[in-house]
Amino acid sequence: MNKIVTVGREFGSGGRELGRRLAEELGYAYYDKEIVTEIAKRTDLSEQYVQQIVERKPLVLYPIHVGRSFYPALDAAAEHNAAVYSQQHEIIREMADKSSCVIVGRCADYILRDRDPLRLFVYADTESKVARCRAKAPEQEHLSDRKLARMIRKIDSERAHYYYFYTGRKWGDPLNFDLCVNTTHTEIKALAKAIAPLCR
Amino acid sequence: MNKIVTVGREFGSGGRELGRRLAEELGYAYYDKEIVTEIAKRTDLSEQYVQQIVERKPLVLYPIHVGRSFYPALDAAAEHNAAVYSQQHEIIREMADKSSCVIVGRCADYILRDRDPLRLFVYADTESKVARCRAKAPEQEHLSDRKLARMIRKIDSERAHYYYFYTGRKWGDPLNFDLCVNTTHTEIKALAKAIAPLCR
Repeated sequence: MNKIVTVGREFGSGGRELGRRLAEELGYAYYDKEIVTEIAKRTDLSEQYVQQIVERKPLVLYPIHVGRSFYPALDAAAEHNAAVYSQQHEIIREMADKSSCVIVGRCADYILRDRDPLRLFVYADTESKVARCRAKAPEQEHLSDRKLARMIRKIDSERAHYYYFYTGRKWGDPLNFDLCVNTTHTEIKALAKAIAPLCR
Repeated sequence: MNKIVTVGREFGSGGRELGRRLAEELGYAYYDKEIVTEIAKRTDLSEQYVQQIVERKPLVLYPIHVGRSFYPALDAAAEHNAAVYSQQHEIIREMADKSSCVIVGRCADYILRDRDPLRLFVYADTESKVARCRAKAPEQEHLSDRKLARMIRKIDSERAHYYYFYTGRKWGDPLNFDLCVNTTHTEIKALAKAIAPLCR
């Protein structure tokens, strides 16, 4: 049976890099942006738009039991959101069928819950996340540490909303993961090597 | 330099067993009840009384800045609490000096924070903790699952108070640990084998 590793992560924690390096160590497929590309192909929406939908809080989408909006524009957005999530769901399950893989984010831990994935959550303290963001995105060098920290919190809050909306679960709740890894003061490359044997 | 592994754990999560098995796997010393025995020797208090102090919320002990009690009986208890914590602090540091070791509970992650320990936290879902308690303590077989779950919550709440009192930190906060391990549906023996290489 294929081995599945899902990686939930706080923004700036190095979770994406850990996922990629884990896949390299393990010789598993690695899925991240590929999922967005594939959704865009199947839905005829632009990659950029799909990316925005899968990374953002589904502001204009209400569960059906709350009632439908009367605004056609909102309905179109809601339909896009639903179409993207449904495609994402299907693609992630196809990927898990194809081979052993590491999937970062995208509610994969929930979507694949019947495949018994190893569910990792990657987190770090604020200082360390700010430092990682600064190292990776020089275009944000004009932001103060405080503003960068606020941006990180905002992105994580959107992830939490997105995750809760589609799964009904609290994002980052340790009980939804098998292993939670603190990357504060930790080199991701060495960490990936150390953790890989657990994922086999 | 000696390698130190500290294990914080929810009651019933199998954290103590994981600590013991990790020590076996690694060939490290294992400290748990030994600490209580040593404190009792050094303070002339009974082991049972020391055990009660280190496992319970320090109800009758207030930080000095809150003000001293006027009740002599409370003062005696407060002095015992302080003496036990101070001995515990000293003993844990002596143990860490002596050899590589695994220490379960007792604020060791905080007491040894300058020795760069690997800090584990072990947790599980309620159902799994209830099942583990039932398997390990047949004398509690008269308790319903609900009552057992309530007892587990009470013990963890006392641990949280104790930990907060002496460290000023929130007990179980992932940021105070390097790795948080979910033992739900997991065999502790296999888990110890899998995690041991991370602790070397």
